[in-house]
Amino acid sequence: MSIVLYDLAGADPALRFSPYCWRTRFALAHKGLPVETMPWRFTEREALAFSGQAKVPVIRDGETVVFDSWTIAQYLEDAYPTPSIFGGAGGRAHAQFINAWADGVLMGAIARFIVRDLMDVIHAKDHAYFRSSREQRFGVTLEVVQAGRDDRVAAFRELLMPMRLVLRRQPWFGGEAPSYADHILGGTLMWPRCASRFELLEPNDPVAGWFERMLDLYGGLGRSAVRA
Amino acid sequence: MSIVLYDLAGADPALRFSPYCWRTRFALAHKGLPVETMPWRFTEREALAFSGQAKVPVIRDGETVVFDSWTIAQYLEDAYPTPSIFGGAGGRAHAQFINAWADGVLMGAIARFIVRDLMDVIHAKDHAYFRSSREQRFGVTLEVVQAGRDDRVAAFRELLMPMRLVLRRQPWFGGEAPSYADHILGGTLMWPRCASRFELLEPNDPVAGWFERMLDLYGGLGRSAVRA
Repeated sequence: MSIVLYDLAGADPALRFSPYCWRTRFALAHKGLPVETMPWRFTEREALAFSGQAKVPVIRDGETVVFDSWTIAQYLEDAYPTPSIFGGAGGRAHAQFINAWADGVLMGAIARFIVRDLMDVIHAKDHAYFRSSREQRFGVTLEVVQAGRDDRVAAFRELLMPMRLVLRRQPWFGGEAPSYADHILGGTLMWPRCASRFELLEPNDPVAGWFERMLDLYGGLGRSAVRA
Repeated sequence: MSIVLYDLAGADPALRFSPYCWRTRFALAHKGLPVETMPWRFTEREALAFSGQAKVPVIRDGETVVFDSWTIAQYLEDAYPTPSIFGGAGGRAHAQFINAWADGVLMGAIARFIVRDLMDVIHAKDHAYFRSSREQRFGVTLEVVQAGRDDRVAAFRELLMPMRLVLRRQPWFGGEAPSYADHILGGTLMWPRCASRFELLEPNDPVAGWFERMLDLYGGLGRSAVRA
């Protein structure tokens, strides 16, 4: 029986762009677990009522319901240990820092380049919710948040320096092979890839080279994803 | 036979403040390996000639010479596997990112608060080298680099957000117990602690709470270290 994943979708139900859902997609694929994804929109709160909260990703695995991408990763590793996504207890603990950097640094930085573009891909029924919640968060209109991005992209690329330093020493954030660290960072970059046409990465950047390899993993799961 | 560690020292040979040497000190202590430290100053290049390069940390373990804090950590883990500092292959691979963040983000940020203070603690014979090499790196005088630090410290504390997010979920960067991730980050913070009296951390910050616990590890190795 497949694991069911509630997955953020655009107006086009095939467009899946949530950076958190992508972490889960990659982790499921890494473990070779069959998945059935359910398109979900921001305002469909009732559809997630069974999970006791209102955000995706949520998975249902038989009788078990788990939400929050990090918690889902723990669950999958414990329930389906092989192949491992963490590479042991130390890998799991240290992945917390990579998850925290992605959430605390990378996500906010990317948002400033694509948050207005998201309005063009999300479902019409999500427009009012999305604009008001994000404008409250940023304190200005989505148009102002995203303005001047061509001039700001060099500074964004500087932020990726820790990723670049790692890639000098090893091909994947998981070392010689991908791990949940790659799922976190690659999943986060699936967000701008699928929701926007803005080129965040400089093509010669080793980060871009790693992301290209990431797109080819798991039968080209990332590369074949629908884009805006 | 003790491992010999060439360790950056101040004018006072008991003052040890290198963030990279501290990573090695903590790793050695974690493994319970006896160490004999050799005070070394920036300009004593000939004293490291046996290592084929001119920076500390360098360790000599019998016939084996290893330099570079990350390479030393690999060596120690391979030569003395128990107790582990990485917690397995995944832990080792993922620690690369924490090392990269410490080197690429944290080190440069801290330097802007203490680089002038370092002139007051290093040996007089290192003054000219230190000032010229660092002023070349920053493109301005050390005094200009460090100026206005009281106004900049809030922004520095924001940079620590990924650390804070991890500490919401687990007591150590290594999870339930310290690992080399703690040695990297704690070792880096030993630099301002020992070389300057500037208070980089806000006392109520969870990062400060973790660092206090870090200072008490290994028989209070960090806490008992001589300060400027």
